[in-house]
Order: sequence, then structure tokens, then C-alpha cells
Amino acid sequence: MSLQKTVRSSLVKQIVEQLAKRVEAGDWKVGERIPPEPELVEQLGVSRNTLREAVQALIHTGMLEARQGDGTYVRSSSEFGAAMQRRLQRSAVFEILEVRYGLEREIARLAALRRSTSDLANIREKLEQAYHVFQDVDAYVRADVAFHIAIAEATKNSVMIDLYKHMTESLHLSVNSTVDLTGHIQTQFKTHAELVEAISIQDPDAAEAAVRNVIEASKAALASFIQEGDLPL
Amino acid sequence: MSLQKTVRSSLVKQIVEQLAKRVEAGDWKVGERIPPEPELVEQLGVSRNTLREAVQALIHTGMLEARQGDGTYVRSSSEFGAAMQRRLQRSAVFEILEVRYGLEREIARLAALRRSTSDLANIREKLEQAYHVFQDVDAYVRADVAFHIAIAEATKNSVMIDLYKHMTESLHLSVNSTVDLTGHIQTQFKTHAELVEAISIQDPDAAEAAVRNVIEASKAALASFIQEGDLPL
Repeated sequence: MSLQKTVRSSLVKQIVEQLAKRVEAGDWKVGERIPPEPELVEQLGVSRNTLREAVQALIHTGMLEARQGDGTYVRSSSEFGAAMQRRLQRSAVFEILEVRYGLEREIARLAALRRSTSDLANIREKLEQAYHVFQDVDAYVRADVAFHIAIAEATKNSVMIDLYKHMTESLHLSVNSTVDLTGHIQTQFKTHAELVEAISIQDPDAAEAAVRNVIEASKAALASFIQEGDLPL
Repeated sequence: MSLQKTVRSSLVKQIVEQLAKRVEAGDWKVGERIPPEPELVEQLGVSRNTLREAVQALIHTGMLEARQGDGTYVRSSSEFGAAMQRRLQRSAVFEILEVRYGLEREIARLAALRRSTSDLANIREKLEQAYHVFQDVDAYVRADVAFHIAIAEATKNSVMIDLYKHMTESLHLSVNSTVDLTGHIQTQFKTHAELVEAISIQDPDAAEAAVRNVIEASKAALASFIQEGDLPL
């Protein structure tokens, strides 16, 4: 590799990192268009070719997305998240669920041991919000995800939180909003309340026992929960 | 975006995918140098610039690596693995361990339920190999990783296997080969034998109970196991 090529390659790398930081910091949000090429060329003080290579690299990682005739958009707020999403797209639902169950049991234990007063308030608030929207399946599913993520955040383990978030988000895209989940949701109110109580009294064994009941109820409801043919089961 | 740019962008994407496939298929192995630029330009029938952009994209994902004055090398056999490694590099050891423990408990249950006769033979073989090298810490740690991965493979869950492999591999880099692990290894022989027995009789509860003992023994040994100051605990 010539010296010139090496210098250029490390310049592209710097620009990739600068652009990725803007996305990770939330300066450019998911779904938004990034500034046009001439503006970025000027801001960053690099050539058009260097910028294009950097943007192309981020398109490949899944962080950015080129829309024909309409510029470049932010697709994912983190590179790890994007790689995880692509990996999970190739997976069967049961595979993702099994991993999630394993994480949820550990999360319940750690949340019970580590939750602060404000974690507990946040978990209770999210559960309350789910109660209020139980007649709207889509809204309930979103609220349920937020409730489980609030519990994951109480673990204070960033790897656990990241993995759990990406698994949960990629799963809930496949919920069938036409099925009647009323019976399932009423079961979940009971099991979720038990889980929150165990976290509240900081009892890891009780929290794990409660989350097992949550998981068993989810498994039982799964057949109707997932849109048939929508994802490989 | 002009039509010309779109065509070029999708050509780069195709080349990225073709190169990634060669790595994933094992045509180019981790640690090996990929063929020189002129050879690839001819093989793929694209311009030098298109090839360079594609290679740059794969360098950014961590699959390839440019070595100054020495060409481009394969760094990781999968894009997901590379993203995972980068994510884990930013994490504390306790965070990775906690996630691994959660996965290990689920893996023990699923392995007990799903192991085939050949899975069981493979697990027993790996345990046997660990027995034989217990006086060499580095060799024992490698054999121990192979034993646990053999159990993960018995789950037949590709997401579980991938996550577990990447977590385990990134952890075991940090083992301190100067500490005396003899006591710990002798405890592990007992707990590992119990785990294999539970998988053998296909009892998921016994398998989970056994893996809890494995984990507790690992936690107890951890203080001496991890090189102090080597990784953020």
C-alpha cells in the first residue's frame, strides 16, 4: 500500500468516526436526512471523494441509508445496534425469544438487587401506562416493551441493556395487531405486578420466579401473537 | 443523489457483499492477507475506486484491516462478530460475565432438552481434553472454552451460539496465565462432570442447577483469574 493511500485511508477513517459520533450523540436522529454533500465537504474540510467513501462505509454498517434521489438518512443510532439487527433478521423468532428469556431471568435478578428508588418509580410508571392502553394492541405492545426496558435499565449493565433492547425491538415489529390479546394481557397484568413487587422488595429469587411466569404466559400466547408467515418460526 | 451516483453506490454494495461472502465462507481466513488490488480488480471486473470503497467499508466494519505498507488482512470472520467485539471492548468485565451467566443457564436447559448423541459425544470429548491439560493454564482455558461452546452448540440455536461464542472469546483473552488455578480447576472438574451428567440424562432443571455451581465457582476464582488492571472490572 502506498504512503498516499495509507494517509487517505486513515483520513476516511477519521471522517467515518466523526460522522458516527454525530449520529451517536443524537445531532442527526434516526429517520432524519443528514446535511447535503457540499455542506459536509465544507464543514469537514475534506474532498468529496473522502466524504463519499466515509458515507459509503456507514451505509454498509447500516447506520446510514441512501434513498434514491433523496439524499442520505440515519437508519440506526448505533453501529452495534445495526449489526445486531442484521444478524437477527437472519434468525428464527424462536431463537431470539430463547435468548431473550435467558436475559430476562438474569435481568429480573439483577434489577431486584440493584434498582434505585427512581428505577422503581420508572418501572411502576411504565406498567401504569400499559394498564391504560390495554385495549389498543399496538399501544399496549409498545408500552410493554418500555416496561421491560425500564427493568433492564435497573440492572445498570450496559451490555445487558443494549442486547435486550435490540432483541426486544426486533421482535415486536412482528406483532399481529388484528389478534385478540385481551385474555393474554389480563394474565400479564397479574404476572407483571408480581414481578414489580419482587423488584420492589429486592428479592432476586422472587423476581426470577415472577419473570418465569411472564415468560410462560408469553409462550402460551405466542401462537396467536406472531403474525403467521410474517417471520420464520 | 444523481442517477450515476446511485448506480455506483449499489455497485460498491455488491462488491462489499461479494468480499464479505469470501470471508464468511472461509476462502480468506482470519489473519490471512487478501489478494492484491490489481488481482481483485481483474477478478471482480470493477474499477480500482469501486474496489477501494468496498474494502474501506469492510475495514470500517472490522472485518478487514489495513496494515501499513503490507496490504489488507482479514480481521474477523463475520461482520456481527466484529461489531460485537468492538461493543464488548468498551464494556467492563463484570458486564460481559453477567450476560454470559444468563445465557449459560438457558444454554444448559436447552442443551439438556435437545442434545443429540453426537452432541453428547462432542461435549464429553471436550471435557476429556480439558482434564488432560489442566496443568497448563492457557491450554486449560482454551479447552474450557471449547467445552462450553460444545454445550452451546447442542442448543441448535444459532443466535445463542453466536452471542455466547463472542462473549466467551472476548473474555478469555484476559486470563492471567501466571496465577495458580489448580484449586479452581479441580472444583470445576466436579461441577463440569455434574453438568455433563444432567445433559446426558436430559434433565433441564439439574443442568441449570449444575451450571449455577459452575458459575459460582468461576465467580469465586475470578479475583485471581483476571489480570489486575488488564481490563476494567
